[in-house]
Amino acid sequence: MQRGFDVAEYEGRLARAQTAMARAGLSAILLTLEADIRYFTGFLTRFWESPTRPWFLIVPAQGKPVAVIPAIGAALMAQTWIDDIRTWPAPEPADDGVSLLADTLNEIAGKGRIGTPMGLESHLRMPLASWASLQARLHGPVGPEHGLVAGLRAVKSAAEIDKIAQACAIAGRAFARVPQIAAAGVPLSKVFRDFQGLCLSEGADWVPYLAGASDAGGYADVISPARDAPLALGDVLMLDTGLVWDGYFSDFDRNFSVGPPSRAVEAAHARLIDATDAAAAIARPGTTAAELYHALDAVVTGGQGGSDAGRLGHGVGMQLTEGLSLIPQDHTPLEPGMVITLEPGVALGAGRTMVHEEVIAITEGAPRYLSPRAGSGIVRL
Amino acid sequence: MQRGFDVAEYEGRLARAQTAMARAGLSAILLTLEADIRYFTGFLTRFWESPTRPWFLIVPAQGKPVAVIPAIGAALMAQTWIDDIRTWPAPEPADDGVSLLADTLNEIAGKGRIGTPMGLESHLRMPLASWASLQARLHGPVGPEHGLVAGLRAVKSAAEIDKIAQACAIAGRAFARVPQIAAAGVPLSKVFRDFQGLCLSEGADWVPYLAGASDAGGYADVISPARDAPLALGDVLMLDTGLVWDGYFSDFDRNFSVGPPSRAVEAAHARLIDATDAAAAIARPGTTAAELYHALDAVVTGGQGGSDAGRLGHGVGMQLTEGLSLIPQDHTPLEPGMVITLEPGVALGAGRTMVHEEVIAITEGAPRYLSPRAGSGIVRL
Repeated sequence: MQRGFDVAEYEGRLARAQTAMARAGLSAILLTLEADIRYFTGFLTRFWESPTRPWFLIVPAQGKPVAVIPAIGAALMAQTWIDDIRTWPAPEPADDGVSLLADTLNEIAGKGRIGTPMGLESHLRMPLASWASLQARLHGPVGPEHGLVAGLRAVKSAAEIDKIAQACAIAGRAFARVPQIAAAGVPLSKVFRDFQGLCLSEGADWVPYLAGASDAGGYADVISPARDAPLALGDVLMLDTGLVWDGYFSDFDRNFSVGPPSRAVEAAHARLIDATDAAAAIARPGTTAAELYHALDAVVTGGQGGSDAGRLGHGVGMQLTEGLSLIPQDHTPLEPGMVITLEPGVALGAGRTMVHEEVIAITEGAPRYLSPRAGSGIVRL
Repeated sequence: MQRGFDVAEYEGRLARAQTAMARAGLSAILLTLEADIRYFTGFLTRFWESPTRPWFLIVPAQGKPVAVIPAIGAALMAQTWIDDIRTWPAPEPADDGVSLLADTLNEIAGKGRIGTPMGLESHLRMPLASWASLQARLHGPVGPEHGLVAGLRAVKSAAEIDKIAQACAIAGRAFARVPQIAAAGVPLSKVFRDFQGLCLSEGADWVPYLAGASDAGGYADVISPARDAPLALGDVLMLDTGLVWDGYFSDFDRNFSVGPPSRAVEAAHARLIDATDAAAAIARPGTTAAELYHALDAVVTGGQGGSDAGRLGHGVGMQLTEGLSLIPQDHTPLEPGMVITLEPGVALGAGRTMVHEEVIAITEGAPRYLSPRAGSGIVRL
């Protein structure tokens, strides 16, 4: 599969952003986060792991985005479709890009309104002290962009969905090989290491996320790192991975029974699949995130609601989680091109839980499973 | 090696923080970033990969830290030494932890000053809109903590250095096996995948960072992801990895010559080792970051300075990069317990460069190499 995108993909993203910006009266949008900057540029690097340097992209009301970035990124940014690239030799404690950014924003936006993400799921990736200096130097006002960029990113192009599908297929092949690496007696930490190795050997570029657990008849929590304790007969092993292919994530999990499952575990797994099916059945354009939540919740709790996870699914794409949340309060309607997870959890008593997750793309008709849909029966190791 | 730390480690960190807070007149410190929160709690999870939920830790002037976190993290946080854990069912669009955090801060700090990281290398990991609401609800003023937490984190305990040493030893074993996976004709993307597999099989918990390049007689940039193009005779292959063991990073690179190296490449590699040796020779308590920069720069450029990388080394620990920078403007004196990288780069003409990196711990005497010190000759594949 081809890496990267044609320039037309970026031109389309920019045109949609600028249409929305005109409606919102914004002269520029300031972006500081990896996925937002990559969305408009194609700038893909794992260097964001280093928290030292801030990176900036300005989306103007007209014309192409302007990158204001540390010099260390200039060569890579020059390989994208962006041609106005302004750099400073970061880190520069006295003025770490602030004056260069202020000058560029003033040049582009003048006294016009500048928007930046300020709402749920966003943050400003630059020091607060730099933010204060920047605001003092700007000629125009800075305010929220009201989720404009997140809204664009939530609806994926066919080329983006292909990449997510590729990531999910890789994860699916790795999950299919879990019986090769996991059995009673194997330390969970070794299962984690070997599973990441499987993801890589099946084609993942990297494996940013892996969580999971293995415990008797279910597990207590779904975000723990691996312990060295060995898997034991009667355990339910859960692995939940977010792996990346060409900058796009898979995010789904699988459960395994170490030895024969108890009836409770078998029934819980079947119920999780039923819940997923019930939500997938109504996952059509116009259905809301809240309606999906209720479809899942009706099966897993009989409509009681409430879960420590706080939600039963979410958007996925350039980030492990992004966009809508399957919660009663989120009334975002589904649109063709959205990619979301369905992630029901079921309580098993004694602080035990089981969680299942699939990835689907919303289409005009029935959703397309991007993860290889799990069967009703739990896989035995 | 034992995972985690004894409670005494956290008690010591807290006591040092509270001593410094008293001096700075702070009633509380608010932390929002993964490493800062983990430093005081031991809360270790890869779930931070999800940008959806904010997490908060309050370090009070007296008493233990208080966690204000999404309910999904409660079970894992309860396994740390923290016992005051307040949760909300995130994501909650109407009030995503803001009122709970405000109430807790007001209870702890009253009208006293609250500090939060605002300087170089920091950011505030919560939505700007939530930050504005929070400030409006607080009884006391919020301002900078003046790098207090970063300063504490920069000086590592023996137990922390052991973990970094473990991560570096794992990376060293993986680098030693590169000849098994890399040769002329192998696509660079496959080398990247297989190298990450080597890191995992040698004991890494995960591999958050890998960058590198392979090109004729040197490379153009050091932060690129892998391309599918195959290695060719005459290439210099560079792999730079940040792998994690128990939450602590290694960060160093190695260069390899695909086939016999040119004289220019041989000489450049030897010069990089000479530069590293020159800096290591003066890396004693009291030497400044700037002095290390100049020691490196004198060898690689003859004192001309200037590099797109912007610095020739940095601190490393719970983050891939943290703390001081080897730049002329950073006059931070070294202290025993600091762990830093020495990362000289040498220009080879025609836009080509080579970079070398080692990790050392500062002691009362000569520094301790945590990475297995490379020899002067470049390794041939």
